[in-house]
Amino acid sequence: MALAIHVLTLFPNMFSGVLGESMMKRAAEIGAVDVELIDFRQYAKDRHRTVDDTPYGGGAGMLLKPEPLFEAIDDLCNRLNTRLESPRARVVLLSPSGRRFTQQVAEEYAQSERIVLICGHYEGFDDRVRQALATEELSLGDFVMTGGEIAAMAVIDAVTRLLPGVLGNAASLEDESHVQGLLEYPQFTRPAVYRDLAVPEVLVSGNHQRIAEWRERHALYRTWKERPDLLRIEQLTPRQRAWLTAFEQGDLTGIDVE
Amino acid sequence: MALAIHVLTLFPNMFSGVLGESMMKRAAEIGAVDVELIDFRQYAKDRHRTVDDTPYGGGAGMLLKPEPLFEAIDDLCNRLNTRLESPRARVVLLSPSGRRFTQQVAEEYAQSERIVLICGHYEGFDDRVRQALATEELSLGDFVMTGGEIAAMAVIDAVTRLLPGVLGNAASLEDESHVQGLLEYPQFTRPAVYRDLAVPEVLVSGNHQRIAEWRERHALYRTWKERPDLLRIEQLTPRQRAWLTAFEQGDLTGIDVE
Repeated sequence: MALAIHVLTLFPNMFSGVLGESMMKRAAEIGAVDVELIDFRQYAKDRHRTVDDTPYGGGAGMLLKPEPLFEAIDDLCNRLNTRLESPRARVVLLSPSGRRFTQQVAEEYAQSERIVLICGHYEGFDDRVRQALATEELSLGDFVMTGGEIAAMAVIDAVTRLLPGVLGNAASLEDESHVQGLLEYPQFTRPAVYRDLAVPEVLVSGNHQRIAEWRERHALYRTWKERPDLLRIEQLTPRQRAWLTAFEQGDLTGIDVE
Repeated sequence: MALAIHVLTLFPNMFSGVLGESMMKRAAEIGAVDVELIDFRQYAKDRHRTVDDTPYGGGAGMLLKPEPLFEAIDDLCNRLNTRLESPRARVVLLSPSGRRFTQQVAEEYAQSERIVLICGHYEGFDDRVRQALATEELSLGDFVMTGGEIAAMAVIDAVTRLLPGVLGNAASLEDESHVQGLLEYPQFTRPAVYRDLAVPEVLVSGNHQRIAEWRERHALYRTWKERPDLLRIEQLTPRQRAWLTAFEQGDLTGIDVE
């Protein structure tokens, strides 16, 4: 059964490009995912379809009012004839104050049946949306965007590609960055020399054992250099620990791509 | 002068929704930003416009070949009659192995004159692109997407909204999440009671001093609860430190929104 994703947004047209191309287009075509865009402005009841208002207590900017979002969720539940309860269904508020989105969260979401993504705009939401509608609050990272739409696209992409049948080659899922706790080793393809830049000799040697060792060493080196916070010393093999000690002492033997 | 952003992508149509709506549309209209989408497949020279190839040393998936990207950057430099040198110009590789994108990076980029965003697809890039073309490698977070396009949109949005004149109200830039090192306090708008959920009494009191204290206390509480990694104890005032000590002892006096 397809994973159902419902996006509550004031700017449904923002999604047209991402949903109509590449992996997302294929995923919809094979029935792995079904994305519904809901413009929650239609649930505003006044003549001007007002969705925002000034904050109690003063301050700059406008907040999203609670009613249109509560009504939109009510209508969704009525149409589906179901309630939205975690963990089978997730109601996710995209906000810079939320839990950080990671590959682990993507894997959890890929196991659920239904995801509702609520995209803010303006200064933020009336907090009752967080308190009573959302099952969780999710942040893409420590930066501020105009709205939640691009964050929603990131979640949709990262989750959908994990669904069965979406990526042709399951092997490529396991091989990639962050999956094994290290950054990816440097990779190269033809030509062997391009503009005086040569592919490391070992990679064209055909010696599989040396290639595997080169990759392991370079994945460790790159992680140590760029993202030491990802290193879990207790999960490293004795060989990896020895390499790490060498790096820390400035000994880069065996490293030919920095 | 407009910030020039050039996006190298195999899927330029993915950007149509985001660039044609809301803040990005306005920013282009007022001349604050000028985004060019470059389909680097056009720089592939063979009859089939091949942009990817298998990795040296074996492994699943395909890599982006170096030539189309190098040629695309050459052509860009020729058209502009300039070289792309940091910090005035940034050539950014979007990849899960890069430096983490944060508000501080967005602020740095907003000071530059030109940003080139290179979007990968498939398994990744031939590493010579990173070594010789890019001035930096940037990651949206510890999760894997199909390509760099959505990450590029996030960067474009977060940077563009910082450009002069793009957001009408400069005050709202300073008031928001992450800018002062704490998460945002809960905010509320009308109605004062909605579905039995009431706005905290202090916020409708009109007492500005009490409102300011309530907000400061709740911003601290929320940060302590959700993102303790953001807290810089040495930057807290004595009052904030006292509140923090109370929270740690389970004393939530004065906290009425959790």
